[in-house]
Amino acid sequence: MTAFTREHCLALDREDPLAPLREQFALPSGVIYLDGNSLGARPHAATARAAEVVAAEWGNGLIRSWNDAGWFDLPRRLGNKLAPLIGARDDEVVVTDTTSINLFKVLAAALRVQQQRDPARRVIVSESSNFPTDLYIAQGLADLLQRGYSLRLVDDPSELDAAIDADCAVLMLTHVNYKSGEMLDMTGLTELAHARGALTVWDLAHSAGAVPVDLHGAHADYAIGCTYKYLNGGPGSPAFVWVAPALRDAFWQPLSGWWGHAAPFAMSPRYRPTEGIGRFLCGTQPMTSLALVECGLDVFAQTSMAALREKSLRLTDLFIRLVEHRCGDHPLKLVTPRDHARRGSHVSFAHPDGYAVVAALIERGVIGDYREPSIARFGFTPLYTSFTEVWDAVEVLRDVLDTGVYREDRFAVRGQVT
Amino acid sequence: MTAFTREHCLALDREDPLAPLREQFALPSGVIYLDGNSLGARPHAATARAAEVVAAEWGNGLIRSWNDAGWFDLPRRLGNKLAPLIGARDDEVVVTDTTSINLFKVLAAALRVQQQRDPARRVIVSESSNFPTDLYIAQGLADLLQRGYSLRLVDDPSELDAAIDADCAVLMLTHVNYKSGEMLDMTGLTELAHARGALTVWDLAHSAGAVPVDLHGAHADYAIGCTYKYLNGGPGSPAFVWVAPALRDAFWQPLSGWWGHAAPFAMSPRYRPTEGIGRFLCGTQPMTSLALVECGLDVFAQTSMAALREKSLRLTDLFIRLVEHRCGDHPLKLVTPRDHARRGSHVSFAHPDGYAVVAALIERGVIGDYREPSIARFGFTPLYTSFTEVWDAVEVLRDVLDTGVYREDRFAVRGQVT
Repeated sequence: MTAFTREHCLALDREDPLAPLREQFALPSGVIYLDGNSLGARPHAATARAAEVVAAEWGNGLIRSWNDAGWFDLPRRLGNKLAPLIGARDDEVVVTDTTSINLFKVLAAALRVQQQRDPARRVIVSESSNFPTDLYIAQGLADLLQRGYSLRLVDDPSELDAAIDADCAVLMLTHVNYKSGEMLDMTGLTELAHARGALTVWDLAHSAGAVPVDLHGAHADYAIGCTYKYLNGGPGSPAFVWVAPALRDAFWQPLSGWWGHAAPFAMSPRYRPTEGIGRFLCGTQPMTSLALVECGLDVFAQTSMAALREKSLRLTDLFIRLVEHRCGDHPLKLVTPRDHARRGSHVSFAHPDGYAVVAALIERGVIGDYREPSIARFGFTPLYTSFTEVWDAVEVLRDVLDTGVYREDRFAVRGQVT
Repeated sequence: MTAFTREHCLALDREDPLAPLREQFALPSGVIYLDGNSLGARPHAATARAAEVVAAEWGNGLIRSWNDAGWFDLPRRLGNKLAPLIGARDDEVVVTDTTSINLFKVLAAALRVQQQRDPARRVIVSESSNFPTDLYIAQGLADLLQRGYSLRLVDDPSELDAAIDADCAVLMLTHVNYKSGEMLDMTGLTELAHARGALTVWDLAHSAGAVPVDLHGAHADYAIGCTYKYLNGGPGSPAFVWVAPALRDAFWQPLSGWWGHAAPFAMSPRYRPTEGIGRFLCGTQPMTSLALVECGLDVFAQTSMAALREKSLRLTDLFIRLVEHRCGDHPLKLVTPRDHARRGSHVSFAHPDGYAVVAALIERGVIGDYREPSIARFGFTPLYTSFTEVWDAVEVLRDVLDTGVYREDRFAVRGQVT
């Protein structure tokens, strides 16, 4: 950390082979955006694409665009573009619905497989610190199924070994924790689950486009995730779903809408699922939002997850070291693992006045976010975050803390922070 | 029908008080669009709104737009705008997810209510001619629940009386049939269901914005529907869901994502549903598509469903009479009821070569659609369909039939027709 300066960061940016990619994103002036892990920035291309979908495809093409503009095939086509980012292959991923809905589908599918293999397995194991909606969906499904289905939560990953016992049907985990930024060992935990007879469901919301993921290499069973964070698909853009080929045609999922039918336009009263991943589709998709996902994915095609990961770790390393070096007098506690193998692409510090600190930072143009309890969270998106921004953000943080501005009344009122 | 001419239709358009509303829609030249019952036309306002959401709200506002641009509240705000069109009240409707997903929620909710009231009721009654995805969703739910849940289909509405017996939990019907255009008696069938101890789920996909609907007046229990047909919300725009106030807080639904939580940002691991209709929300919504729904709803605020219904019936009356008068030599059979009380806002004719006839019409710029088996379907949207267009469309139909052009090879190949 000796002699680290802003000039040093400027030099890092000059030498950064990924730096030109930033030009493909619209980033407002006066803002250092460290919340791409919550809502990714807008690719410039999205403006023209939105206009094309609305004016040309909807306005002029009208109903003909379901075929002529490729709307009907878009969930599959986007899935194929996304697949390489998560270690999946062609025809294995569809982009559709929300992460919550897709989680319901794969959990129900996994429980049905277990019902056939070993009916005594009726427990979903997860972490109490998992993203809440994942837990809510699992609770909702268990409550719907009745018959003894339930959710078992552990407070720490070290307890998983004991929790995955003979009644465990599914191990449901988020790969990178939304709060702490801790990344779990997907390969090791999948191996453990399989050795105990359980299937695995991986939520990649904070992983896809953020860290290298190899679903096939990890022998994972099901995965879901969102496209509006690191993949820069737009606000609330539809989510994705993947299933291991060995399980794909065997399974059934209960949200069996017409888009998953083998012959949707035959209008048969009886559901007959299509072959492959298409059976994860359900209802008609929101085309304007869906189409914009492609603009984000197209940027990834110009680099590699290995290159992005290398820069991501350098950004988060730099941020951790600068905060600890330049804000060391303040009660900030690093929550994110220092170990690269256990770190995603965001960094969280706990602070007793975490909410007010984040609010004061946002007022000063440094956009991170707050998560209960007391966590200030900062996302680093190597496609568009620069090393100099890391420096500047830490300087603003230092000033907010040194001056104590965050203690002013206007930062105490809790608004909704997403 | 004496002396009906194109000039007569021109005069009807001149006298039509709704005619100016057409100017608010983008309709491509050279096209007579009679498929607004499948995908509504684009309100002009949608182009600017899409640009605003993508460039300003996403691009500049970034994560702050969840609060500052009202994204988080949008499902409720749009629900309140939509409510008057279906006889619902403030805070009773949310716009979210897809019709299929919303149907799953309300069916599960209704079955749970029945499980508490009368556990022997485990049958969902519907029509075999209901829109297939509704039947598929009911099948998927029954298959998920097991424990004897099942779907019972009747082939004709006249059989419903016998089908709604002591084991019937839910009567699930689509108010206006997607194929025939027949409108069911919502009030009478709801009364019948209630008298037999069943709850009702009404699919308003072909009703909302097409015909007056009075959910409170009919004492309906649950309703769902789509916004991309007569409501002109855009391709695949999110759907809506309504529940009767008496059932709202009592119920539970299994797609319990974080948007339905009483305190979503408390990030509690335990699901606790919010009060009211908000508990029908699940995951993060596709904001660009969702925002455009408002452009369609804003047009409805300038007229009334009574005025729209009056024009709709005049348009469908005119179409039926002109087809029968001017194409009477051809084997066209009216499928839609002549009785106003039983007719929605589209008209279907069966023809032995229905597919080819529709394909030939589309080539000539008259866009209707085809539905198995042998049905040519034409939607009339009083917001933007003119009487002269009805005349012109029938003239094209007459020419296609008289010349036999539809028998040419290129119309025989079945592409996908949505």
